[in-house]
Amino acid sequence: MQTTDIKSLKFTRRRLEVLRAAAKLFSGLGFHRASLSDLGEALGMTPAALYYYVHSKDDMLFQCGQVALEQLKNALDSAHSEGRCGLEKLEIFFALYAEVICDDFGRCLVLTNASDLEGESRERNLAGRRDLDRAVREIIGEGIADGSIRKTDERDLTTLLFGALNSVPRWWSPNGKRSPSDIARAYTDLVVRGVAPQK
Amino acid sequence: MQTTDIKSLKFTRRRLEVLRAAAKLFSGLGFHRASLSDLGEALGMTPAALYYYVHSKDDMLFQCGQVALEQLKNALDSAHSEGRCGLEKLEIFFALYAEVICDDFGRCLVLTNASDLEGESRERNLAGRRDLDRAVREIIGEGIADGSIRKTDERDLTTLLFGALNSVPRWWSPNGKRSPSDIARAYTDLVVRGVAPQK
Repeated sequence: MQTTDIKSLKFTRRRLEVLRAAAKLFSGLGFHRASLSDLGEALGMTPAALYYYVHSKDDMLFQCGQVALEQLKNALDSAHSEGRCGLEKLEIFFALYAEVICDDFGRCLVLTNASDLEGESRERNLAGRRDLDRAVREIIGEGIADGSIRKTDERDLTTLLFGALNSVPRWWSPNGKRSPSDIARAYTDLVVRGVAPQK
Repeated sequence: MQTTDIKSLKFTRRRLEVLRAAAKLFSGLGFHRASLSDLGEALGMTPAALYYYVHSKDDMLFQCGQVALEQLKNALDSAHSEGRCGLEKLEIFFALYAEVICDDFGRCLVLTNASDLEGESRERNLAGRRDLDRAVREIIGEGIADGSIRKTDERDLTTLLFGALNSVPRWWSPNGKRSPSDIARAYTDLVVRGVAPQK
């Protein structure tokens, strides 16, 4: 391995550590309350050293969102490759979604808003969120077409599931009995089977 | 009517106007970003005049929450008096819940956290939120007992429905086609009937 490769690997790893600490701080304190000095303190770094890895608070929140959106794209890929019908893809996706949004970057994505960002960061973050939304609506459409999901409003089912799941990071604790994907499976089971008495 | 009664009525009405403006500001900007001078500006009042109605920012957020929690207690009462079984009570409650949380005070309750408050305000706000949660779990228990809801985990169904509904104020607009209660009915219909194909 070349010296420059090792340097670049170290840079990438350290940058991800900085971003993860930022994501935790933004989720915990809220984006607007968290300051660069809070972050420096959490990492034992000076503001000048921080700027070597990220350009601004806006850039940090944007980059945290990009990491989460990338993880969620992978979740979509897994759902498509492992699910045998629309319904299975939906269940797999939301189980993975729950794991991502209860971890640092996903939690930050869910607990902040695109409107916290500015200009191009905001546009790109919004576009990522919209793509995700559309991908789930498409999976539901696929389920309706293949008969695994009854004819229903794709948009309502999408906002219902995202809404329900997005509240989980607000109360879920790693000390609890169930994993985020267990909770997601319990939710999708309720929504799939319904809670009306069995006829 | 006595002069003092009229004065007290005027005070109550003006105080509610101040609180409503505060609720809008906290929902829009976030509690920590909103300042008393923003509020004074929105109302055309000096900070000194504001203090005649409320004691502090903490007190304002607490009082806004109390108004919303009172509205939600009324929603629970209506659900109990109008619903003929647990399932109907659940549907009625969430239709009313959606209307409350898409209006100023409820929106503020949902878009802020008990942890934004301090000391006794925080405790009382948390207690109000917990009471609401427990009341909904009890309605579900009632539905399971009377056979209108199949045997299911009360806690999961409660967090699923609150989670889904609580995301509505984040995207709902009064300019849209559907009222908050229409959306709540669409959600409860999905969860009641389920989305699996009809056998």
